[in-house]
Amino acid sequence: MAKEKKLVEAITSMEEDFAQWYTDVVKKAELCDYTSVKGCMVIKPAGYAIWENIQAELDRRFKATGVQNVYMPMFIPESLLQKEKEHVEGFAPEVAWVTHGGLEPLQERLCVRPTSETLFCDFYKGDIHSHRDLPKVYNQWCSVVRWEKTTRPFLRSREFLWQEGHTAHATAEEAEERTIQMLNVYADFCEEVLAIPVIKGQKTDKEKFAGAKATYTIEALMHDGKALQSGTSHNFGDGFARAFGIQYADKDNTLKYVHQTSWGMTTRMIGALIMVHGDNSGLVLPPAIAPVQAVVIPIQQRKPEVVEKTAELYQILKEAGIRVKLDDTDKSPGFKFAEQEMRGIPVRIECGPNDIEKGEAVICRRDTREKIVVKFEELAEKVKETLSAMQHEMLERARAHRDAHTYTALDYETFKDTIENRPGFVKAMWCGDQACEDKIKEDVQATSRCMPFVQEHLADTCVCCGKPAKKMVYWGRAY
Amino acid sequence: MAKEKKLVEAITSMEEDFAQWYTDVVKKAELCDYTSVKGCMVIKPAGYAIWENIQAELDRRFKATGVQNVYMPMFIPESLLQKEKEHVEGFAPEVAWVTHGGLEPLQERLCVRPTSETLFCDFYKGDIHSHRDLPKVYNQWCSVVRWEKTTRPFLRSREFLWQEGHTAHATAEEAEERTIQMLNVYADFCEEVLAIPVIKGQKTDKEKFAGAKATYTIEALMHDGKALQSGTSHNFGDGFARAFGIQYADKDNTLKYVHQTSWGMTTRMIGALIMVHGDNSGLVLPPAIAPVQAVVIPIQQRKPEVVEKTAELYQILKEAGIRVKLDDTDKSPGFKFAEQEMRGIPVRIECGPNDIEKGEAVICRRDTREKIVVKFEELAEKVKETLSAMQHEMLERARAHRDAHTYTALDYETFKDTIENRPGFVKAMWCGDQACEDKIKEDVQATSRCMPFVQEHLADTCVCCGKPAKKMVYWGRAY
Repeated sequence: MAKEKKLVEAITSMEEDFAQWYTDVVKKAELCDYTSVKGCMVIKPAGYAIWENIQAELDRRFKATGVQNVYMPMFIPESLLQKEKEHVEGFAPEVAWVTHGGLEPLQERLCVRPTSETLFCDFYKGDIHSHRDLPKVYNQWCSVVRWEKTTRPFLRSREFLWQEGHTAHATAEEAEERTIQMLNVYADFCEEVLAIPVIKGQKTDKEKFAGAKATYTIEALMHDGKALQSGTSHNFGDGFARAFGIQYADKDNTLKYVHQTSWGMTTRMIGALIMVHGDNSGLVLPPAIAPVQAVVIPIQQRKPEVVEKTAELYQILKEAGIRVKLDDTDKSPGFKFAEQEMRGIPVRIECGPNDIEKGEAVICRRDTREKIVVKFEELAEKVKETLSAMQHEMLERARAHRDAHTYTALDYETFKDTIENRPGFVKAMWCGDQACEDKIKEDVQATSRCMPFVQEHLADTCVCCGKPAKKMVYWGRAY
Repeated sequence: MAKEKKLVEAITSMEEDFAQWYTDVVKKAELCDYTSVKGCMVIKPAGYAIWENIQAELDRRFKATGVQNVYMPMFIPESLLQKEKEHVEGFAPEVAWVTHGGLEPLQERLCVRPTSETLFCDFYKGDIHSHRDLPKVYNQWCSVVRWEKTTRPFLRSREFLWQEGHTAHATAEEAEERTIQMLNVYADFCEEVLAIPVIKGQKTDKEKFAGAKATYTIEALMHDGKALQSGTSHNFGDGFARAFGIQYADKDNTLKYVHQTSWGMTTRMIGALIMVHGDNSGLVLPPAIAPVQAVVIPIQQRKPEVVEKTAELYQILKEAGIRVKLDDTDKSPGFKFAEQEMRGIPVRIECGPNDIEKGEAVICRRDTREKIVVKFEELAEKVKETLSAMQHEMLERARAHRDAHTYTALDYETFKDTIENRPGFVKAMWCGDQACEDKIKEDVQATSRCMPFVQEHLADTCVCCGKPAKKMVYWGRAY
């Protein structure tokens, strides 16, 4: 019992200290660990298995839209990074520089990619000649490096894993269409698979990607009321094409610049899963993304009939296509329950001598802790039903939480008070002026999260300066 | 027709210049491309799709043996790299060094991982405490960097993709067992999937991995008679554990060092596929690894009955589980044939008005160019049969080529003459002395490829020095 207590007691409650709770879950659910390189993490099997599922789901959705995977070098020569002016200004302060190869100093230093626009442009310049070569709809899965000052596991690390899509199109319309298409892929993935509801919208100029004409984003709300930018899709127009000279001969035989996009989603989504669904017993994983969806836990497992029956139940669930484990280790059932809860396995199936006598097992849901007694012959079906209900209800619960923490402010005093005292999104009108964003940032450390696609006319004037309003904006403090 | 000729003419024949032929295939089959960073390549969609298939096949086989995937940082602090003496001596001369993060110089420089033994050891030191924590059977898919002086696409590049498995075990026996088990996974994968026969054996001390107690290897023979080391599996004993202090409390409550292994396979296998199976028309892909196994090419595709029938055939093949494409672009059939051959698509299915009248299509095999006329209703089955036959025959053909280019030398003159004039493997006896390996390297630029598990007693004495022989060795010139 000492060990069981330790496993549970070691978590700080989220009400007491949300940041510490997050760190405890990351560590106790064995998702990742620190390393001797500050800001770089080891992603452990339980964490990496979630990433593998994210990859598989996204990759399938990408390929259904015609995406092809490629791999670009991890190094960018300094002169290449500098070709697009805004881009280099945005990234140069936070890249890692390689200056020596083997025992020799390099003639030109190389940065470890913080993102690969410049590499794709350099490649497209040589690979695109004619309208027949378009569109290029490429993506890569890789790691990138940004030398952040303050770091947090999954949310902000110096190295992280992601995918970055980079496309080139003949027309501006096609590029815009692809930008929005991929934002929708991200949004659907977040809602359908991660059970995380998102707000779709456009970033303001202040918040957009370095070098982009327009950045679209999906914004999610964490349990503590902070926002998390969860995926972005950028339309570059022909800005990079002009900087790199990427032209194609159109059908009319004139040379034209291509129009480009890029879009990315990262391992920070593992952090989002923790902060949207987790509770004071640990992680809670939506069944669609959970590497293990169900664990069978024998009660009094030294009894031969228990060994036999739980092995049989495991087999039945496996054959039904459920990602299931049988935990027949020599730990106590209580310890196994605590572990299942900490790791966020969606359901556990308990089965002991009494259950066997009655021809039953108990399904226990991770999110609601609801216990469902079920006849053996109905187990597989009932587990599937439970997983499906849980997936649906987790999304609805997260949506209800998000909606309950979305406020409206019509004047600046209310706005500031809401930001400071009611963690969540604040909807408010904005004049379109960066000065107001800067003032809000300084006054209450909140940023414009996005100008949502679904606009509401809350008032005629900017919540900050009182000038005529142009857009409704979601504001919030963010990770 | 000008374009078709260009596609075919652009390849140098392998008899004329094998190295140029290789480069031509890499380029014309659109597998990869050079970049502005010397020695780093872009892996293009056709090349990356092969890598994705290699990953899927290997990963499935790994997981069946209990492997779990993780992700370690890409950076190694200099002090960490230096902890195991032989290891740092082997790798330090060829690593890339990061010296600046953002605008600041780093306090300690970091190398970009050339391999991750030191990172896994640093992690295992903190993660392994008890015999209950063992074994650890971890793997990661990532890119690594080795600052090579001379580079060739896929075969030797400064950055390449690979998987690296790193395991920790309670006993020496278990570590040795795992080392051999993973070598066998590689060998089976090469033969069953890549249709590349391999020699399994042990590396001599001179050729073993920096820091290993024993390195096992699979060696393949390329079409030009040069050897390619295709996968290695290392047993470290407790060497790294002692250097890093990785100990566990055993059941008897004494502290013991773990025993470790590592094993890797890389994107160089794409190079092996080219050099084992390719011909003067381009790439030839074994069906089991080919991203596209069959392409349907309409003849006189403007005719509506051809459009309709080829779309139907495509659908039938797709539903039969064949990875199939329909090439209905506006290129000529001849151009499409040349493209299919260049890209190594295992079979093409030709179908035009005459065929439709007879209720037939023509299957054309990429490797033998054999044409098989088949009734529509038997198409799917016949394509499957053909792919299966091709997979089998490609392995047997490669094996026959390897065997026909494996020689035996009993004296040094014959040995040198064979190495110089008959490209291939040379089997010869060896005394076990590194001086003989050095002499052979200097005299004829050949290296010991491996001491095969299947030993033959060819003679009593070393082929080089005449002292008593200890082992039969495969020698050859290698990539």
